[in-house]
Amino acid sequence: MGPHPAVAAIRVAVRRVLHDVLNHHSSQIPAPAHAAQQPVAAGSARSAGALSPAADAPPLVLVACSGGADSMALASALAFEAPKLGVRAGGITVDHGLQDGSDLRAAEVVVRLRALGLDPVDAVAVQVGAEGGPEAAARDARYAALDAAAERHGAAAILLGHTRDDQAETVLLGLARGSGTRSLSGMAATTGRGGRYRRPFLEVDRQTARKACLIQSLPVWDDPHNADPLYTRSRLRHEGLPALEKALGKGVVEALARTAQLSRDDADALDSWAADAERTVVDERGALDAAKLYALPAAVRRRVLRRAAIAAGAPAGSLFARHIEEVDRLITAWRGQGTVNLPGRVGVRRQGGRLVIRQG
Amino acid sequence: MGPHPAVAAIRVAVRRVLHDVLNHHSSQIPAPAHAAQQPVAAGSARSAGALSPAADAPPLVLVACSGGADSMALASALAFEAPKLGVRAGGITVDHGLQDGSDLRAAEVVVRLRALGLDPVDAVAVQVGAEGGPEAAARDARYAALDAAAERHGAAAILLGHTRDDQAETVLLGLARGSGTRSLSGMAATTGRGGRYRRPFLEVDRQTARKACLIQSLPVWDDPHNADPLYTRSRLRHEGLPALEKALGKGVVEALARTAQLSRDDADALDSWAADAERTVVDERGALDAAKLYALPAAVRRRVLRRAAIAAGAPAGSLFARHIEEVDRLITAWRGQGTVNLPGRVGVRRQGGRLVIRQG
Repeated sequence: MGPHPAVAAIRVAVRRVLHDVLNHHSSQIPAPAHAAQQPVAAGSARSAGALSPAADAPPLVLVACSGGADSMALASALAFEAPKLGVRAGGITVDHGLQDGSDLRAAEVVVRLRALGLDPVDAVAVQVGAEGGPEAAARDARYAALDAAAERHGAAAILLGHTRDDQAETVLLGLARGSGTRSLSGMAATTGRGGRYRRPFLEVDRQTARKACLIQSLPVWDDPHNADPLYTRSRLRHEGLPALEKALGKGVVEALARTAQLSRDDADALDSWAADAERTVVDERGALDAAKLYALPAAVRRRVLRRAAIAAGAPAGSLFARHIEEVDRLITAWRGQGTVNLPGRVGVRRQGGRLVIRQG
Repeated sequence: MGPHPAVAAIRVAVRRVLHDVLNHHSSQIPAPAHAAQQPVAAGSARSAGALSPAADAPPLVLVACSGGADSMALASALAFEAPKLGVRAGGITVDHGLQDGSDLRAAEVVVRLRALGLDPVDAVAVQVGAEGGPEAAARDARYAALDAAAERHGAAAILLGHTRDDQAETVLLGLARGSGTRSLSGMAATTGRGGRYRRPFLEVDRQTARKACLIQSLPVWDDPHNADPLYTRSRLRHEGLPALEKALGKGVVEALARTAQLSRDDADALDSWAADAERTVVDERGALDAAKLYALPAAVRRRVLRRAAIAAGAPAGSLFARHIEEVDRLITAWRGQGTVNLPGRVGVRRQGGRLVIRQG
């Protein structure tokens, strides 16, 4: 008799990612951040790796674990699958220091991860700043600690426990920004420097992870922040998404997760088109040819304008759709407008059939 | 003293569209369905039209009016703006026959539209079928009646009262389908044969339309269907969207409407890329070159595969993302799979480095 379906589901998800990590590890080539998007002929990376001497060193894979159901399920699946593939499995838990007793909590998670057979296991205390709001600050501190742990242990990958439900929430958060296809693309399955971070559970739902913990008698911890209505994501999880499901039907989470993948592919394709188009419209002094811009599809033209503004010094995070639209009107609705001012003291003016974009 | 801001807002929105209708009308060229996406140099179409003999005949613009606040506001703005631009303004109301007394209701709307000075004004009774569910069946019957009215009166355009709130709801309905960027693009500002249908209020919110009716002492009718929880859109309007706003903030409707526009532009650009790419991968016998498909970005490759499947006879409405993904695996994860069967008895098989797509 095989394992319970929930346990089987989390193990399959982790096994797939470990296979992929092994391929990348043995091929000795650091994976680019966008590796997940590029089709790779089955087995080609692996066979290249078989000839490489580095294939001998057993790689280490760490799980980032809060002690919650998602990451505990992930840790259990890693502990089960890693030895069968000759992978060393370790864990790390981050103490954000935001609640009384968080240090004890972290120590408890360390004990639980060791009990699963993971080694090495670290608890790392971090200082959470204030920049960008409480959620962003905690995230920044967490990833800095995980990056440092990966370097310290020479880890080939760090697994993150984000589920399909987390992905759906991320898409809705992106939708609320209203900044288009890229903001709807959610979290990548592979991200970070060299493709270090992996999210095996992006197609596993939260309920399955929770069930797998129950079946395996793993104690889990419910972070009170996850139910705190002060946090946007928590309001979305407990009110917004359930109301959407009530209105639109049970398939909403799956639809949002699929939207993320499709949007990511669309945004990647359009970005590559814009990068190509940029080269054809720019002259030797860095100005953009208005007639050539005009001939591009709106979606590509706006991306070219955005790239050029960022290259000239406009900070990407402050550059909104309305800024780019105003620049775009220098091309599509030209009637002698003056300089368009963008964040980062970048000015765009039209001059003799060209857009001149300059910081100053 | 000018009009109330709400009244000014609805009039500006209608004036813009009437200018555009005049340009298209006088240029004598039927507008293509995608005209709204193509940048047109300011004034060029109009000056061409000034030389055309057809510029003499005053065009007729009809408003489709249910008697609700959105379309009554639209009718009032059309009645105010049309004469100033030498446009004849008429109206049409559709009696769906779904409620007791709907014929009397339609007669009342006719009286109200005539009171605004519109002429001609028609009430048209339609038979609503059952195909595709109650909302789709009512919509199909309505557009058939509106098309017939446009032909009968030789109307240059029909204005529809969809607001930014309707657009936001449409984006969420598309999101629930999870079929990607095109399904997130909501309603077009210009649509139908020859760009007949226009939606002047896509950037006007429902509250503004309602306010404009109040200010102008226009009686409006609240369709009980709009509050009927049997209808998906009604549930979305009264429960789903308010819950999302509570979780994500008040800007959600605007963000969703902006998403629609950005997604539409992105989908148009990718469709044009796919149309170009299709020509480069197809051979003289209609088979697709696997290696050339492989080299395309995933977003473009999947669109090429979808186009080819539809061209071979697969019905577009039954062709889901999962079908195309399975075909895509013949390219990206080829390991000797058999024929992939698609709706409409279309089969796709890989044969000697080519995809052969055939119905039968």
